Amino acid sequence: MKITTKIAEMRKETGKIRRAKETIGFVPTMGYLHEGHLSLVRKSIEECDKTVVSIFVNPTQFAPSEDYNTYPRDTGKDIGLLSREGVALLFMPSVEEMYGRSPLTNIGVSQLSEKLEGRLRPGHFKGVCTVVCKLFNIVSPDRAYFGQKDAQQLVIIKRMVNDLNIPVEISGCPTVREKDGLAASSRNVYIPPENREKAVLLYRALSRIKMLAERDGIEDIPTLLEEGKKAIEGCPEVELQYLEIVDMEDLSALNKIEEKALVLGAVKISGVRLIDNMTISLK
Amino acid sequence: MKITTKIAEMRKETGKIRRAKETIGFVPTMGYLHEGHLSLVRKSIEECDKTVVSIFVNPTQFAPSEDYNTYPRDTGKDIGLLSREGVALLFMPSVEEMYGRSPLTNIGVSQLSEKLEGRLRPGHFKGVCTVVCKLFNIVSPDRAYFGQKDAQQLVIIKRMVNDLNIPVEISGCPTVREKDGLAASSRNVYIPPENREKAVLLYRALSRIKMLAERDGIEDIPTLLEEGKKAIEGCPEVELQYLEIVDMEDLSALNKIEEKALVLGAVKISGVRLIDNMTISLK
Repeated sequence: MKITTKIAEMRKETGKIRRAKETIGFVPTMGYLHEGHLSLVRKSIEECDKTVVSIFVNPTQFAPSEDYNTYPRDTGKDIGLLSREGVALLFMPSVEEMYGRSPLTNIGVSQLSEKLEGRLRPGHFKGVCTVVCKLFNIVSPDRAYFGQKDAQQLVIIKRMVNDLNIPVEISGCPTVREKDGLAASSRNVYIPPENREKAVLLYRALSRIKMLAERDGIEDIPTLLEEGKKAIEGCPEVELQYLEIVDMEDLSALNKIEEKALVLGAVKISGVRLIDNMTISLK
Repeated sequence: MKITTKIAEMRKETGKIRRAKETIGFVPTMGYLHEGHLSLVRKSIEECDKTVVSIFVNPTQFAPSEDYNTYPRDTGKDIGLLSREGVALLFMPSVEEMYGRSPLTNIGVSQLSEKLEGRLRPGHFKGVCTVVCKLFNIVSPDRAYFGQKDAQQLVIIKRMVNDLNIPVEISGCPTVREKDGLAASSRNVYIPPENREKAVLLYRALSRIKMLAERDGIEDIPTLLEEGKKAIEGCPEVELQYLEIVDMEDLSALNKIEEKALVLGAVKISGVRLIDNMTISLK
């Protein structure tokens, strides 16, 4: 596995792959890799000739009040994991290399970015879209892999790629979960052990809603959300930030599930924000 | 010359060029081509293996009050001109092909987009940046050519390309002028003949400022602007919209010319907006 911290070198390497008429799969990450990331890497390796991974904790997608400085990092371990998987190229740029002196350009995806996570994290998706577009321009992948766990991010990136005609195919991959159902996340490491078992409550709420809709045929959304909230309420350590059932494509609020919908939630436990989601399919 | 209106076909054609290891020069235009456009096309043909031109009157860079509907169009004549020059590919997409159903993604270059033209045309540069990025993603050129006449646009596009790591080299080309000095522009056709000779006053104001700075060593900007305005004042048919001397790179207002500066102006004559600029170089 080749490791580079420089944009110019990255371009040289991907240029070589391209000239050899090989396809490039790309997995952008913020490092501190878990099974979720590795599932993306494996899918890329399966589907593409060469796989490129980036590790970059992107400061512009964190608000000043957020956890940029404490976001978990373990580059040594990450390198070991990726190299064992068979990744061809690892890109680990510095903030300086990525942003140089005061960038002025931002990419916004209106409407989709203002809901759900966007309401709680203003500017977050602008930071995400801009850095993902930059990485696509540096790596020029044929396909890029994102986790369904960040469902809103996936919808927004697909929309950006479509709207800007970026020549890359976006592949959304299933959420990887721990044994009890908690979605794999780099932030899980910050859940205090004494609250770890409560972290699963969001998963339980989502599962309950999915079951009531799919198995019991409940289509009324206020009822479903009410039932979901019951799984979390009564546990003061878990603060429910939102729980919504929305359209899969445009994330708009629904009154009733027609065929498919997305149920998403966010909780805060001991200062750690966790998000999760599930798709509901009535057919 | 191959002509296509479809993105997918355009990609296929540029893919062929790329696989043949030939370089692509790109000249994005809104059509109604004049000598300014043709000078860009000639430079591209000189420097690149294959030249691609686009003709697309981009609705998103016009405000509702502006001249999108009356922007001059003459596709037949444009095709003749480009084909005689030796253009390889002409891309003429419809608005539907470019934007499909309600795009949500926009690219903004803050600060630079809010000054000068941006103050008078809110949203203009967002429209320009977004469509130029889309065209770059569709054509994937090695080099793209823009006229220095739209100086602020050129600064903003260079900034966007740099900030987003778009793999294209931006080439700014000198303004082409009519015999009396009026900058070539598709909109010149709308200047009523009886006011045509007054259209040159902006050029005269800019030339006067340039001369006073470069030849007479006047560095004080209020004095220079005062002198420039004299060339226009006293002619009620010509409304001066702005006249400014700014930094070449960040378009910030200057107090004094150090080495280099950009003097830009906009006038309105019989409802037609004209812009022009010159660089001032003290060494």
